[in-house]
Amino acid sequence: MSKVLVFASMSLDGYVAGPDVSADHPMGVGGERLHDWMFTDPALPDRAVTDGVRAETGAVVVGRRTFDVGLRHWEDVPYPAPTFVVTHETRPDLPQAGGTFSFLAGVEAAVERAKTAAGERTVTLMGADVQRQALAAGLVDEVRISLVPVLLGGGAKLFDGLPAMTFSGPVGQVSFAVR
Amino acid sequence: MSKVLVFASMSLDGYVAGPDVSADHPMGVGGERLHDWMFTDPALPDRAVTDGVRAETGAVVVGRRTFDVGLRHWEDVPYPAPTFVVTHETRPDLPQAGGTFSFLAGVEAAVERAKTAAGERTVTLMGADVQRQALAAGLVDEVRISLVPVLLGGGAKLFDGLPAMTFSGPVGQVSFAVR
Repeated sequence: MSKVLVFASMSLDGYVAGPDVSADHPMGVGGERLHDWMFTDPALPDRAVTDGVRAETGAVVVGRRTFDVGLRHWEDVPYPAPTFVVTHETRPDLPQAGGTFSFLAGVEAAVERAKTAAGERTVTLMGADVQRQALAAGLVDEVRISLVPVLLGGGAKLFDGLPAMTFSGPVGQVSFAVR
Repeated sequence: MSKVLVFASMSLDGYVAGPDVSADHPMGVGGERLHDWMFTDPALPDRAVTDGVRAETGAVVVGRRTFDVGLRHWEDVPYPAPTFVVTHETRPDLPQAGGTFSFLAGVEAAVERAKTAAGERTVTLMGADVQRQALAAGLVDEVRISLVPVLLGGGAKLFDGLPAMTFSGPVGQVSFAVR
């Protein structure tokens, strides 16, 4: 069975995207600071985290907004795998170099199709709305948070308004200096 | 010079204490789940974190509410060091086995006195209000967050409503399962 994964970078004040998401600001205004760590020296341990997700991902579910603003930046599917976009709009498949975008109505249907496509590999969820909806619906098996020492002050929160849920895993220890 | 440290356990939804703090619930209702990790097997790596703070702490600044609800649980000063309670009430010093509680008006005055008392050692801040006030006033040198995989849904947030600040340090990687 495939595992359904939420992989998100989060600010200290709980935001996984900044405010006012647009094509010019696909992570929201200031939100790109959440992802800077992904593009650092390949020798740093952090790179093993993103490389690991890339290696294990067998299918992707992505929100419509993330798809809309992300495509011109990815110039392909976001991971080299079949990618299911959650939208009520009926659209034909959109093949790319690394995989095909398919369009499905509803997070449940998209996760179901992605699990079939992924086989034994991981289904990776992208986009704050899809991630939160999937958490609330009990569709998620694992969460990996990269806690980034920045304050965004606004945007989309992953963990607000969720029902009571039980997680299990070690405490994350994070230390940083204030300048 | 002493270093001023915020050491806090935080839930995934950003709370450092639960709602309705009282003598019966010194961490707020449900908030004790934030600190469970501190009382686990002494062989676990997490224990090194709390032992390290205990070893380096040369003085403590604590909020009045945390003092009021904490004293009967600590049955002493919270760390074996001089401890400065922020309150506008004038009170005589309160000696304990491990150090003396002194009472000062205002976070700035308390941090100043604690730095003198700590010498080269660390000033550790306790209590969400005092920690946030000290962050906002630019008095903090380092923050250590233990990100605990629980949702509290309410309580006190450390990082809400702060002015723009710059932090520097590595991203924290946290992974947990959803049951």
